[in-house]
Amino acid sequence: MKKISLFAAAIAVMASFVACNQQDKKQQEQRLTPEVMARLFPRPVVSPDYNADGSVTFRYKSESAQTVLLDCQMFSDKKEMTKDTNNVWSVTVKPEVPDIYPYCFIVDGIQVTDPSNMFIFPNEGFKNSLCDVRGEVPSMQDLQDVPHGKVSYRYYHSNGLGFDRPMCVYTPAGYNPSADKKYPVLYLIHGMTDTYETWFKVGRMNNIMDNLIAKGLAKPMIVVMPYANPNPEMEQRHIEHDFNIMGTDVFVKEMLNEVIPFVEANYKVKTDADSRAIAGFSLGGRQTLATGFGNPDKFHYVAAFAPAIFGNEFETNFQNGTYAPISDLQKKLKFFFLGTGSEDFLIQASRDFNKYLTDKKLKHTFYNPGGGHTWMNCRDYLELTAKELFK
Amino acid sequence: MKKISLFAAAIAVMASFVACNQQDKKQQEQRLTPEVMARLFPRPVVSPDYNADGSVTFRYKSESAQTVLLDCQMFSDKKEMTKDTNNVWSVTVKPEVPDIYPYCFIVDGIQVTDPSNMFIFPNEGFKNSLCDVRGEVPSMQDLQDVPHGKVSYRYYHSNGLGFDRPMCVYTPAGYNPSADKKYPVLYLIHGMTDTYETWFKVGRMNNIMDNLIAKGLAKPMIVVMPYANPNPEMEQRHIEHDFNIMGTDVFVKEMLNEVIPFVEANYKVKTDADSRAIAGFSLGGRQTLATGFGNPDKFHYVAAFAPAIFGNEFETNFQNGTYAPISDLQKKLKFFFLGTGSEDFLIQASRDFNKYLTDKKLKHTFYNPGGGHTWMNCRDYLELTAKELFK
Repeated sequence: MKKISLFAAAIAVMASFVACNQQDKKQQEQRLTPEVMARLFPRPVVSPDYNADGSVTFRYKSESAQTVLLDCQMFSDKKEMTKDTNNVWSVTVKPEVPDIYPYCFIVDGIQVTDPSNMFIFPNEGFKNSLCDVRGEVPSMQDLQDVPHGKVSYRYYHSNGLGFDRPMCVYTPAGYNPSADKKYPVLYLIHGMTDTYETWFKVGRMNNIMDNLIAKGLAKPMIVVMPYANPNPEMEQRHIEHDFNIMGTDVFVKEMLNEVIPFVEANYKVKTDADSRAIAGFSLGGRQTLATGFGNPDKFHYVAAFAPAIFGNEFETNFQNGTYAPISDLQKKLKFFFLGTGSEDFLIQASRDFNKYLTDKKLKHTFYNPGGGHTWMNCRDYLELTAKELFK
Repeated sequence: MKKISLFAAAIAVMASFVACNQQDKKQQEQRLTPEVMARLFPRPVVSPDYNADGSVTFRYKSESAQTVLLDCQMFSDKKEMTKDTNNVWSVTVKPEVPDIYPYCFIVDGIQVTDPSNMFIFPNEGFKNSLCDVRGEVPSMQDLQDVPHGKVSYRYYHSNGLGFDRPMCVYTPAGYNPSADKKYPVLYLIHGMTDTYETWFKVGRMNNIMDNLIAKGLAKPMIVVMPYANPNPEMEQRHIEHDFNIMGTDVFVKEMLNEVIPFVEANYKVKTDADSRAIAGFSLGGRQTLATGFGNPDKFHYVAAFAPAIFGNEFETNFQNGTYAPISDLQKKLKFFFLGTGSEDFLIQASRDFNKYLTDKKLKHTFYNPGGGHTWMNCRDYLELTAKELFK
């Protein structure tokens, strides 16, 4: 554990006060001093603790727990944690490959995010923490000493849905909304149960873009990350809905009628199909295909990362008009990237799709590395895709 | 529970695949269809579920749990949840006042964030979810149909600390970095164990500012939210440090030498003290006082929300030069707001401070509503403060 000043112990104090009910504590506090606070409350645990040798120590404090396991995507199995005399459970592990790994603790069978770690995987359906193991050589997803773009959280009004909706927008270093220079745009779609934040917080798309652009490996571009699933917003507003999350109609309409017009009205962007790309992961890959393959007049660059397409429904989609005729795509698409890991549960559909497109002579890249349906793979797909866009 | 389409059940599927190890599942997936997925996996729970009558239903799915409690800042006590035949634990509650309340579940004694809720309280030391109960009449913190500013995540280089650091910056609707118009700036500081995201994600400062500005109740301004605690970044970089989190020296230096110059170089802002404000909560209130009261030539507007000052150390701070002489403040400060709730554990120090400043005839506002050391109170303090700035 790193050197922590005595006063830092007071961190735990305020956390406790803010986190829980404070009624009982008033009388102790009449003449509260940092020294008193440090004595009253235990020192916080540091977790994850990144050791100089590349290993990582995870810690979780609990007096009452019987078993604590680390469930980290660094490994396929769970790691047992052991308790020290201060009731701090810990385990030290070293990943084969430095990367950003989602994890949680399993405390007596219950999934728990790491209370000490501020980095959380934004998601509608589960909560993981993020462990960011850096290698000797910085990777494309690491914060490096290069000019930085920024990621802005903003709202657009959806006329179709009837309310204001959030999106994240990456603008590269040097972007100036009043200058003449116009940028191409990548629309980047999250996976099922992910949110508009996931490509930023887990995908670290800002670091990947900053680094690629600084090294001259990608064109400066704007990246737009909409929120593909309006269900939670409709629920909170008590709007009747039966939005089918596996269907793509609502998504495609929202993209074409709301998101793209908002972006083109509010950013200095090129509006021709040669300057517009769409990419997405998992369900976002399914939505990407419906949007991109469905509108080859609007998108000349398409990338599907482990897309959620089932069986041979791509054939049906060509037949029923969800996708444009393949002859259209052959003429218009400048780039199609299909990336799916060998251990991904969706690999078979990607293999079938690749074979189909190869038979039909649609020029494309099929990238089939190791790895599963993970964000470690996603970042790899984005890096490879971003290098090829708008060239 | 709201109407959820059959396919939405598939949400849980991908979440499970992404969240946990997928090795065993490959063979089932050869010809996976949405229908198969819906059958294989349980329907996800909706939580929190905002009912039309203003009540909220919280749900947590667990087969093995013995007791599940709701620990929500809506109430001072914990609420028991009961299990239905589908192993979904739930409780329905109604707050006296619609507001945004932090909460967690206590599952067999273990604090757990709500897996179904994407809104998380950004913090270094604990993890709470956020429940956003809206009233009949929208409040200042609600998303309303007004022009929206945006919150940008960006990095600045700290020469003093030697690495790039994150900050959030709110720019109001209509802000144009290339136009002639210049804006005043509010520096807004989080509490102990909070992060640079907390004023945005929990404080909803963007909605408060959007609404106040749209109604003509606050001047358009830029709001800068730096990260007050560099310890986690230094630890990850293996930089030796003994930064005392209760000390204010490092913070004041970082503000004056790094944050303000970066903002003034990168935004259209006014640079006179009449156009510069600083406000902060808890430890951020302590840091605000050191920065603002210490530099009345630079800040003419200062606001401390439940500041972490102990005993009568404000007297010491005037004596030892941490704060400028009170005669200086009397001459230069245009506004000082001290806000602390009656049930706040820091109220006594605020009362003493208020009395001291009244005796010394320093013009100020002491706001002492009900409520404790909470972000419900914080949003109230910010709203009152923002209305008075730069007028």
